[in-house]
Amino acid sequence: MKSKPPQERAVRTRRALLRAAAECFDECGYYGAGTNKILARAGMTQGAMYFHFKSKEELAHAVMLEQAADLELPAEPRGLQQLVNVTLMLAVEMQNNVLLRAGVRLAVDPAGPARHDDSIYSWWAALFHKELVVARAAGELRDDVDEKSFSQTLVGAYTGTQLMSEITTGRSDLTLRITNLWRFLLPGIATPEMLAALDLNGVPVMETG
Amino acid sequence: MKSKPPQERAVRTRRALLRAAAECFDECGYYGAGTNKILARAGMTQGAMYFHFKSKEELAHAVMLEQAADLELPAEPRGLQQLVNVTLMLAVEMQNNVLLRAGVRLAVDPAGPARHDDSIYSWWAALFHKELVVARAAGELRDDVDEKSFSQTLVGAYTGTQLMSEITTGRSDLTLRITNLWRFLLPGIATPEMLAALDLNGVPVMETG
Repeated sequence: MKSKPPQERAVRTRRALLRAAAECFDECGYYGAGTNKILARAGMTQGAMYFHFKSKEELAHAVMLEQAADLELPAEPRGLQQLVNVTLMLAVEMQNNVLLRAGVRLAVDPAGPARHDDSIYSWWAALFHKELVVARAAGELRDDVDEKSFSQTLVGAYTGTQLMSEITTGRSDLTLRITNLWRFLLPGIATPEMLAALDLNGVPVMETG
Repeated sequence: MKSKPPQERAVRTRRALLRAAAECFDECGYYGAGTNKILARAGMTQGAMYFHFKSKEELAHAVMLEQAADLELPAEPRGLQQLVNVTLMLAVEMQNNVLLRAGVRLAVDPAGPARHDDSIYSWWAALFHKELVVARAAGELRDDVDEKSFSQTLVGAYTGTQLMSEITTGRSDLTLRITNLWRFLLPGIATPEMLAALDLNGVPVMETG
């Protein structure tokens, strides 16, 4: 049996580090998750870590930015129904995907890398915006809706909703809360026809890598 | 000149401690604001602090729960316009009220007292709910709106919106973001007549104690 080529080994080491870090950040927050704790969890030496990440901050930054790297979002349908589906799938996925959960936690942690970096919020806003552009072209949106403004609003509203759900029920009511959020938001953005056609109950099962 | 009676002195000491703690939490987050830093800021001894608060956690808890203690919300108009006004006033007040700012920051800090305590979220939800009950009685709400569910949704959406505004612009665009949030939420809750009558631009000046 041949040994793994060095590059593949490096990729695996990096992934194992990200996962161990995600588990620690998820449990203890940015400040509480020390480098030693992360290394012990990964079963690695400092040398292995510093080959990939110069500091705990760089590691946290990678967890935050790669929170959605393994998500496989469905390709269809595009537009407003897809936007609703993605947010409902995230609510379910958050229960069992530690990288997503840690990334989202770091994004709201005032001690973490998001304190001066909004790139993950912009990334989600851009993803939402793409579906709104499709929705606009398909005539699904009310005339007075600004797509940029709504994608920003949705990221903010989603972020706070998941935070409240985490604090009050450990996220077990997140799907319900996101569904409620959409009930109140949709009349302000969808045409009456689209509003009647949208399905808020179909939470498709998501495949993760 | 008579010296202050002991009880009044104690009240002043407590307020000074809360304010010093709020300044430290606002700047450094829960974990970064050590007890020594807070005492140095307040110019007090450990003994003075332990008379009022057994620990940094208790102090943080008090800041979080008393974040809105000094706010003087306007008495009129009641109902949906009041709900809108209160959220817009909070957006302005957050710029210059350090106790409010620190309380809000602690409420989203995963290292802080809100990790297992949702009482401040419930407090805001109850305050919003009161105006929704008035709005319902005055015929301002759509038939399909559940007041409890919307008050929860609003707290979550507001929380995430202010967090994004803090990260991206240090809260300088918070009023704009809250106004946008309302533009998208109001068609889902207000009757068409009320929707046409609501004023989203009037941010009354708030008097603080």
